[in-house]
Amino acid sequence: MTTSSLSTTEIDANPLSPELLSKIDAYWRACNYLAAGMIYLRDNPLLREPLAEGHLKKRLLGHWGASPGLSFMYVHLNRIIREHAQEAIFLAGPGHGAPGVLAPVYLEGTYSEIYPNKSEDEEGMRAFFKQFSFPGGIGSHCTPETPGSIHEGGELGYSISHAFGAAFDNPNLLVAVAVGDGEAETGPLATSWHSSKFLNPVRDGAVLPILHLNGYKINNPTLLARIPREELAELMRGYGWTPFFVEGDDPMTMHQTMAATLDACLAQIRAFQQEARTSGTATRGHWPMIVLRTPKGWTGPAEVDGKKVEGFWRAHQVPLSGMHDNPAHLKQLEDWLRSYKPEELFDGAGRLIPELRALAPEGTLRMSANPHANGGLLRRALRMPDFRDYALQVAAPGKIRAMNTKPTGELLRDVMAKNMDNFRVFGPDENTSNKLDAIYEVSKKLWLCEYKEEDAQGGELSPDGRVLEMLSEHTLEGWYEGYVLTGRHGFFATYEAFVHVIDSMYNQHAKWLAICEEIPWRARISSLNLLITSTVWRQDHNGFTHQDPGFLDVVVNKNPEVTRIYLPPDVNTLLSTVDHCLQSRDDINVIVADKQNHLQYLDMDAAIKHCTKGIGIWDWASNDQGVEPDAVMVGCGDIPTKEALAATALLREHFPDIRLRFINVVDLFRMQPAGEHPHGLSDHDFDSLFTKDRPVIFNFHGYPWLIHRLAYRRTNHKNLHVRGYKEKGNINTPLELAIENEIDRFSLAIDVINRVPRLQVAGAHVKEKLRDMQIDCRNYAHEHGIDKPDVDDWIWPF
Amino acid sequence: MTTSSLSTTEIDANPLSPELLSKIDAYWRACNYLAAGMIYLRDNPLLREPLAEGHLKKRLLGHWGASPGLSFMYVHLNRIIREHAQEAIFLAGPGHGAPGVLAPVYLEGTYSEIYPNKSEDEEGMRAFFKQFSFPGGIGSHCTPETPGSIHEGGELGYSISHAFGAAFDNPNLLVAVAVGDGEAETGPLATSWHSSKFLNPVRDGAVLPILHLNGYKINNPTLLARIPREELAELMRGYGWTPFFVEGDDPMTMHQTMAATLDACLAQIRAFQQEARTSGTATRGHWPMIVLRTPKGWTGPAEVDGKKVEGFWRAHQVPLSGMHDNPAHLKQLEDWLRSYKPEELFDGAGRLIPELRALAPEGTLRMSANPHANGGLLRRALRMPDFRDYALQVAAPGKIRAMNTKPTGELLRDVMAKNMDNFRVFGPDENTSNKLDAIYEVSKKLWLCEYKEEDAQGGELSPDGRVLEMLSEHTLEGWYEGYVLTGRHGFFATYEAFVHVIDSMYNQHAKWLAICEEIPWRARISSLNLLITSTVWRQDHNGFTHQDPGFLDVVVNKNPEVTRIYLPPDVNTLLSTVDHCLQSRDDINVIVADKQNHLQYLDMDAAIKHCTKGIGIWDWASNDQGVEPDAVMVGCGDIPTKEALAATALLREHFPDIRLRFINVVDLFRMQPAGEHPHGLSDHDFDSLFTKDRPVIFNFHGYPWLIHRLAYRRTNHKNLHVRGYKEKGNINTPLELAIENEIDRFSLAIDVINRVPRLQVAGAHVKEKLRDMQIDCRNYAHEHGIDKPDVDDWIWPF
Repeated sequence: MTTSSLSTTEIDANPLSPELLSKIDAYWRACNYLAAGMIYLRDNPLLREPLAEGHLKKRLLGHWGASPGLSFMYVHLNRIIREHAQEAIFLAGPGHGAPGVLAPVYLEGTYSEIYPNKSEDEEGMRAFFKQFSFPGGIGSHCTPETPGSIHEGGELGYSISHAFGAAFDNPNLLVAVAVGDGEAETGPLATSWHSSKFLNPVRDGAVLPILHLNGYKINNPTLLARIPREELAELMRGYGWTPFFVEGDDPMTMHQTMAATLDACLAQIRAFQQEARTSGTATRGHWPMIVLRTPKGWTGPAEVDGKKVEGFWRAHQVPLSGMHDNPAHLKQLEDWLRSYKPEELFDGAGRLIPELRALAPEGTLRMSANPHANGGLLRRALRMPDFRDYALQVAAPGKIRAMNTKPTGELLRDVMAKNMDNFRVFGPDENTSNKLDAIYEVSKKLWLCEYKEEDAQGGELSPDGRVLEMLSEHTLEGWYEGYVLTGRHGFFATYEAFVHVIDSMYNQHAKWLAICEEIPWRARISSLNLLITSTVWRQDHNGFTHQDPGFLDVVVNKNPEVTRIYLPPDVNTLLSTVDHCLQSRDDINVIVADKQNHLQYLDMDAAIKHCTKGIGIWDWASNDQGVEPDAVMVGCGDIPTKEALAATALLREHFPDIRLRFINVVDLFRMQPAGEHPHGLSDHDFDSLFTKDRPVIFNFHGYPWLIHRLAYRRTNHKNLHVRGYKEKGNINTPLELAIENEIDRFSLAIDVINRVPRLQVAGAHVKEKLRDMQIDCRNYAHEHGIDKPDVDDWIWPF
Repeated sequence: MTTSSLSTTEIDANPLSPELLSKIDAYWRACNYLAAGMIYLRDNPLLREPLAEGHLKKRLLGHWGASPGLSFMYVHLNRIIREHAQEAIFLAGPGHGAPGVLAPVYLEGTYSEIYPNKSEDEEGMRAFFKQFSFPGGIGSHCTPETPGSIHEGGELGYSISHAFGAAFDNPNLLVAVAVGDGEAETGPLATSWHSSKFLNPVRDGAVLPILHLNGYKINNPTLLARIPREELAELMRGYGWTPFFVEGDDPMTMHQTMAATLDACLAQIRAFQQEARTSGTATRGHWPMIVLRTPKGWTGPAEVDGKKVEGFWRAHQVPLSGMHDNPAHLKQLEDWLRSYKPEELFDGAGRLIPELRALAPEGTLRMSANPHANGGLLRRALRMPDFRDYALQVAAPGKIRAMNTKPTGELLRDVMAKNMDNFRVFGPDENTSNKLDAIYEVSKKLWLCEYKEEDAQGGELSPDGRVLEMLSEHTLEGWYEGYVLTGRHGFFATYEAFVHVIDSMYNQHAKWLAICEEIPWRARISSLNLLITSTVWRQDHNGFTHQDPGFLDVVVNKNPEVTRIYLPPDVNTLLSTVDHCLQSRDDINVIVADKQNHLQYLDMDAAIKHCTKGIGIWDWASNDQGVEPDAVMVGCGDIPTKEALAATALLREHFPDIRLRFINVVDLFRMQPAGEHPHGLSDHDFDSLFTKDRPVIFNFHGYPWLIHRLAYRRTNHKNLHVRGYKEKGNINTPLELAIENEIDRFSLAIDVINRVPRLQVAGAHVKEKLRDMQIDCRNYAHEHGIDKPDVDDWIWPF
């Protein structure tokens, strides 16, 4: 049974000539043969001998279920690519079906070009089969080793958002994306259908989602495969798409229907693009998408031991196993493999026969060789304004206040202005709140839905906007990843507490980058830049739910080669940091900086020097010149730095002969030993900063134990006392929250007194006074709802 | 303009008599007055004097925008609750609109009953106003302090899944849930609409979503408010719902439309429930939902300084500010507040007048006093089978293998059988894969969508199933949270790598629980039990993307009062742990245990003793009896324990006089000092286990630095050497992965040799031998695709 909702009469319902039909089917059989071969065979790749147990892998791993459907899409996309010289790439949402992608990639020659020992002959095919899902070989998803892949599909849910990221600002590109029906149940995927509301048909390419109703997950039917077709059509139309249905299991009929449907979809896409580009007017498109319903494990064993396999969840992984001690299974496997007729598909040397090879596109039109899928090849360095031009004048440290993120907004504005075709800014409805709104002077927020009169009053909306805002961190992160993976640049600002929403996306992107470091042919791409703002210490009316600096703990778990964390304390250090990050490659840069008014410390020259070192003594805040300090005070992060400075001032006021060293940390990984992170300080340098035996009070932005985790091997670790957020919060004034978590000046000063032996006696009275001041501050906050002005307005007194 | 899609002719289109209409509007005005009062006033709560600057809070915090809409829903729900004696609770997805919920909660008396100093009079109202979003007061979301709340709404996206969790197994309950149109853009919310496919109308209550098209987020329009109404209707129908539209801005017309629509919805719900319950047949309902389109900040200032506020994003937070130095604004505020006519609404004492009070339901019919929203009140302890009955016979330690999770599946089966009305099992399509499939013997997977013939062949589906499987960790976690928050019990098993998908949900639930610890009237609820399985060390064909044990690093950041982590190494310790967790309260229990065949160590008696201590020396694996050991070997987690044991065996084989102590850690927080976590060991006990000066080789399941973070204050920390996962992975055999990350027996044995001075000389040769064995193992894996059988089949040799 094959059905299609195709109604456009101009499109031929049976576009394939009998000859082409037969060839396409043969090409698809070759794919399916290879997919099965990868899962099972370590030898006898062309079945030139009767299949014997010794030809099989000992452990059978891989996922057959989605593979035939993925190959089916791939070979049909190949036809329209050839016929229309259409640039396209392919993303496999259900990355577990990698055999269905690796097979056509090998058949079109790219695999052998990149990996010469996986040549297009029997020997190469044997190696190609053996390496799959095999120790020392390649993974069973569309891993970075897969030519043409920008989407591994190991964790499900991000295929559509990655696809849109790839399509942005690539007007001639078609991004075909297979969406698994299991994947479609995830939250990130479910909202990413709305991405089409952010696709500008004048300047962006097209995304063609193919929702693969494969029917089953590991052990369950999928939801979308078990609702009425009209209900699913309503869902897709409700998301803003025009659905086309291709449903069935008879290959020959399905080939015709798929071909006709792809013709129709491409015609609609091109017509809409042409209309928009001719008129120059971008409107929201109800773009076509395809619902492809095929049996899971299509063309595989229908039954095994009397149990249904094809078209059922049993086809998910290895559909037929136990061959090693079951001759009947071995026979069934051989019959299955031979059903694809490999002898008709491959020549004597083991290469795909020429008439089938001719079906694949050539050169960079091959989806596996499209440079967009190896984005570093296309990456152009950003044209950068001079970040020094945005400097705040800081005549003396610690005397004036400014909003830390605001000048960075101006820098981003001018980066945008200079790179209007390959730079984007992403944020969940918060760029204004985060004080980055200068960006709107050159580019508004993209908006293609309905406009209202009031939008003129500060809506900052435009169909041409290059700032993307949607209340889905998942979708934004996915777009951004897709955008940099295809060779472009971007910046993502988000609330600190809710960056945890994309913890797992961070993990997956970091893993992708770490693997890429080992793959010579993967060209280097732009780093992912995450500005974490609206931080834990300033959640004045959001309270406890918005207090979570723990993303950094997730970040540090990933490969040191790709992870970077910066905590610039003021305007100029933030500018310098952002300038660096925007130009870096292959990293994930996490920048923590609050958006509120903060004390300013460094002029631009000092900021550049400080950021270059990443950590350093602030001489102006230290008075240990020429002597060993009584204690070392460290600030890391904007508010912790201010409180740490205020603590040293309190101490110097009460103990005029105390000698204190003040250190500020911008580059958090400086804390780690040099052997553990490329930014790590040598032990010698670390000791010269932190001393070998003096008490160190480290006032940290995040959870305090993170510092111990980084620094536990350091000489002076036993004297390292870290303060940070420890889940003590509610509706608090900033100072009150600091006091609750003991990162405030009073707690820090008391800490020093407790740890410097010669202050023990004289210090008792001072500690009492400091505690009274804490109580005063808290009482004032509870009475007035604001911090005590004299404490709040504190400036550096020296 | 008011429109409604109401078509049911039996329902009165104008159900409110003029008198009732006027009263409902007055009640709503009282809500809006209170909501504005909370944001602005610290004195003069009833405006009995002209408004003066001194009456205002110094810092204005809170969110006005969503508040009037939330109150509007609340007062209309009150009417149907009264008229139909319908048990109901209310969840505010946009929790930022707390003033719109707190207001009706106060007006119906619950607030004053719970917080007597927020009494129903002028003095109480003053205190009620002042505390809102004020230091020392309450937060600006529907925090746990809010009577009737089970959903704070600080982080967006979980309202619908929480609502369904509350409705499961509560046949008479109506869960009304306001869904923010900003929230609706999040991934978790977008997929949670599918929850209705898991609602059994025979045994479950009903969920009535009210999608609030408030129109704007912080600075942007919302997507769903800017697509054509019919497109939105298609989206909702596509999700499986029957949408009703209530749209407009004229209060009187809107009251009638909302009342008529609620009547229609309740009638549909009850008709469908009655049909299902009469017939005893559960089918999937296309349940009603409401799209409520009202202006953001409805009834607030239309314009401020010539700029549109009502019905625009400017109404999001505080719509009118700068009163402190702008008399015109102060006047505008007073006019706005007085527009609600407080003098008509409250009596001389400051209490809502009796004819309005009569509109609220009474007693526990008040949504704010419904015991379901304080679930601990309704919680019944689980009827537990004796977990000892599922024990695996373990005659001697380390001699046999078994799948660690399988007997736990049997235990869960019998817990399910004994608690068929208040226990549920949740999992993303993986309960069979995770070897918990015994559960299906007593309860299948809930399935209400289409059935196919093949489902009879092992589909394990049933419309009455109590196991919930959907490929959305977000939705499952949300359901589960809603289920325990309303007083029931559950169990959630999920893949280790992808539990990061719900990091932020974990964070929010932990914060909720931590606050509840401080609220005496919140009754204790069941703990959330998360079984983390399919772990990092056994991702044979999934590879690198599936290797991430970092959830534990997220877990430890939260309040020690509510966090628990267990790593039982075998069948019997897992059974004992699960038994404990299922009966615990107010915690989040994270249990890490792999599903594959593992070596078994402890018989049930020993397992119980070991789990009770949480950490302990395994005497049978130690040979330091009566002497100080040369080194301490620690295993924490199943595979790390096996490798650590194998390392001690290798060492004892090569160095017959070596003295080793073997420790196993089940309860991870034992590692932390007693003052930092309730499960923490005292330093004395810790030192007696780990010694004060011997090398400790700690083989850990997760990222190694987590152990340093927990133990950095311990006496012997300088000698603590931790091995764990460090992002070295690909397609690996289990042993090869262990070797890559140095948690394998050979690396551990080498570690010991390196750190025990008296082994230095003799050890050089042994180390070389061990390194050769590592290389052999890796070569074997690369050649055969499996681990060397003699190493893989290793058993404890003593």
